Amino acid sequence: MNALNRLLGIEHALIQAPMAGVQKSGLALAVSAGGGLGSLPCAMLGPDALRSEIETIRAQTGRPYNLNFFCHRPPAVDVEREQRWLATLAPYYAELGLRPPAAGSAPTRQPFSAAIVDVIEAYRPPILSFHFGLPEAALLDRVRGWGAKILASATTVAEARWLVAHGADAVIAQGLEAGGHRGHFLSDDLNLQRSTMALVPQIVDAVDVPVIAAGGIADARGVAAACALGAAGVQIGTAYLLCPEAETTALHRAALADADAPNTLTNLLTGRPARGLVNRLMRELGALRDDVPEFPLGSNALAPLRAEAERRGRSDFSSLWAGHNVSACRTISATELTRELIAGLPG
Amino acid sequence: MNALNRLLGIEHALIQAPMAGVQKSGLALAVSAGGGLGSLPCAMLGPDALRSEIETIRAQTGRPYNLNFFCHRPPAVDVEREQRWLATLAPYYAELGLRPPAAGSAPTRQPFSAAIVDVIEAYRPPILSFHFGLPEAALLDRVRGWGAKILASATTVAEARWLVAHGADAVIAQGLEAGGHRGHFLSDDLNLQRSTMALVPQIVDAVDVPVIAAGGIADARGVAAACALGAAGVQIGTAYLLCPEAETTALHRAALADADAPNTLTNLLTGRPARGLVNRLMRELGALRDDVPEFPLGSNALAPLRAEAERRGRSDFSSLWAGHNVSACRTISATELTRELIAGLPG
Repeated sequence: MNALNRLLGIEHALIQAPMAGVQKSGLALAVSAGGGLGSLPCAMLGPDALRSEIETIRAQTGRPYNLNFFCHRPPAVDVEREQRWLATLAPYYAELGLRPPAAGSAPTRQPFSAAIVDVIEAYRPPILSFHFGLPEAALLDRVRGWGAKILASATTVAEARWLVAHGADAVIAQGLEAGGHRGHFLSDDLNLQRSTMALVPQIVDAVDVPVIAAGGIADARGVAAACALGAAGVQIGTAYLLCPEAETTALHRAALADADAPNTLTNLLTGRPARGLVNRLMRELGALRDDVPEFPLGSNALAPLRAEAERRGRSDFSSLWAGHNVSACRTISATELTRELIAGLPG
Repeated sequence: MNALNRLLGIEHALIQAPMAGVQKSGLALAVSAGGGLGSLPCAMLGPDALRSEIETIRAQTGRPYNLNFFCHRPPAVDVEREQRWLATLAPYYAELGLRPPAAGSAPTRQPFSAAIVDVIEAYRPPILSFHFGLPEAALLDRVRGWGAKILASATTVAEARWLVAHGADAVIAQGLEAGGHRGHFLSDDLNLQRSTMALVPQIVDAVDVPVIAAGGIADARGVAAACALGAAGVQIGTAYLLCPEAETTALHRAALADADAPNTLTNLLTGRPARGLVNRLMRELGALRDDVPEFPLGSNALAPLRAEAERRGRSDFSSLWAGHNVSACRTISATELTRELIAGLPG
């Protein structure tokens, strides 16, 4: 039993990556049943849904679980910027016969807040993980007050050091090949970020807390490799996307069938860089642009387009989040997949 | 002893990556003395230099060595394209008080050819590695005639399959984090390429020849991780850049001192995408552009700028090739570094 297992009170140092939009408690519970640590992505859940999901988890397992939150700074309203972006998207709205939304709508993802702590504290969740930094000290004090352990994502050595200095109990080293949103928070320069193979040993050398490797790990070989790099555990997301317990859309599942499909970082879909399969929007506008509304408002401008295109069976504007390693995605139970992955952990 | 060791007649499956422009036989010999496979980058050597370097190696070791060549298609002359690019660079020429070169100068890197086989066949080099695909079948037949083993780089599963079908005895799986030129040859779409963690196991599953992992591997932990992914051996370049036996420039060495420096893919310096540290040119023009002259002519347009800036102690236009993992670069003998890396191979 290594330091991470002891810290989190888990049997196996295998964490299912929280994936907002494609899973809820069902996947977390299936992973938990296989011996891994299930995670609930909470950034897109309102108070009632959050309560309900936590209660579902607690009703079905006594094992630890992980609640994941975003820590972005809420975006400043910038109606002009949104209007310029909507003008760029106007030909797509015309093509689909839709009226563009008004600029200035409310964000769909809320950062961690006192209101959220008010909701979750009754349940004393044992593990919280954060993306885009850490919440302010007062909030962190509250959750630590009931004994919660704190995980947070680092994309650079500097971010790993910062997280430990500000209270993280373990660091998730998010390699550049990881799917979904990049967790950076100290600098927007993507050229500072490194692959899992390069990042993990450097963070292991830089901090004195357990390091969790994330990015490109899809099977027991990857798990073993991450541990050889010095990781105390792994966090895996993409490999779970085809599991029946995930809520991955049919379009997303179909796109994942091609392990060799083009995959890139894009900020078009939400306003922050995230990794996924290339869609039409990215091909036509370029995947990274300076003029997308600030996260998470980028997604508002696309929502009607996405919904209508998906209704027509097209993923032209959809988030097809995926890391670099789609090869292990299979339609098998997340419980079974978790057992297979755990086999890669050192005995 | 695994299949790669047997194939190449080497004791340890640790290959020093050939790095044109920063090393010659000195580094290869130092690596060989440490028990690794030394490599000589030949793409920028004329016939006399090639003979001389091979003779130096043969005079100092009886161990196998690797000669590395490029297999690019020589670029079509496109004077207009070169002139447009030189116009883009004109402000830099003005700033340094230099006259831009004429368009239409000869390329500085030659692809593998019958003339090269004529030069090397007297030495019957035991191992040849190729970048950007493989030479035509008739040339490959000649080198196989004296028993040479053939290695070649793949950046995708499709390229790995193609290389094996066309005669490669082993495949170098070049992860996206590797330093220097990307080896792709079937498609220019960089979004098809994957990190080492993702690429190696997929190529291992796809081909029935030994797979050599390259990219992001810098110490014994990385070597062990690559082998856990299923690689039969590793190829390592960046970690050797500060060794005294390398001919890395002082400016390049100074830039490598910062393991966290911005690092990106760029085609500005030669016309093909390659990974290195960000320099002024990349910051000001963008690192990947459509209007750079075709490889290797891109380097001609920059040569006078690079030389004059370097004379003034600036790397504004220099190739500072480096992979994602610069953390292990130290000023120690390549022989000693090789021994340290070999410790990561399975016993």
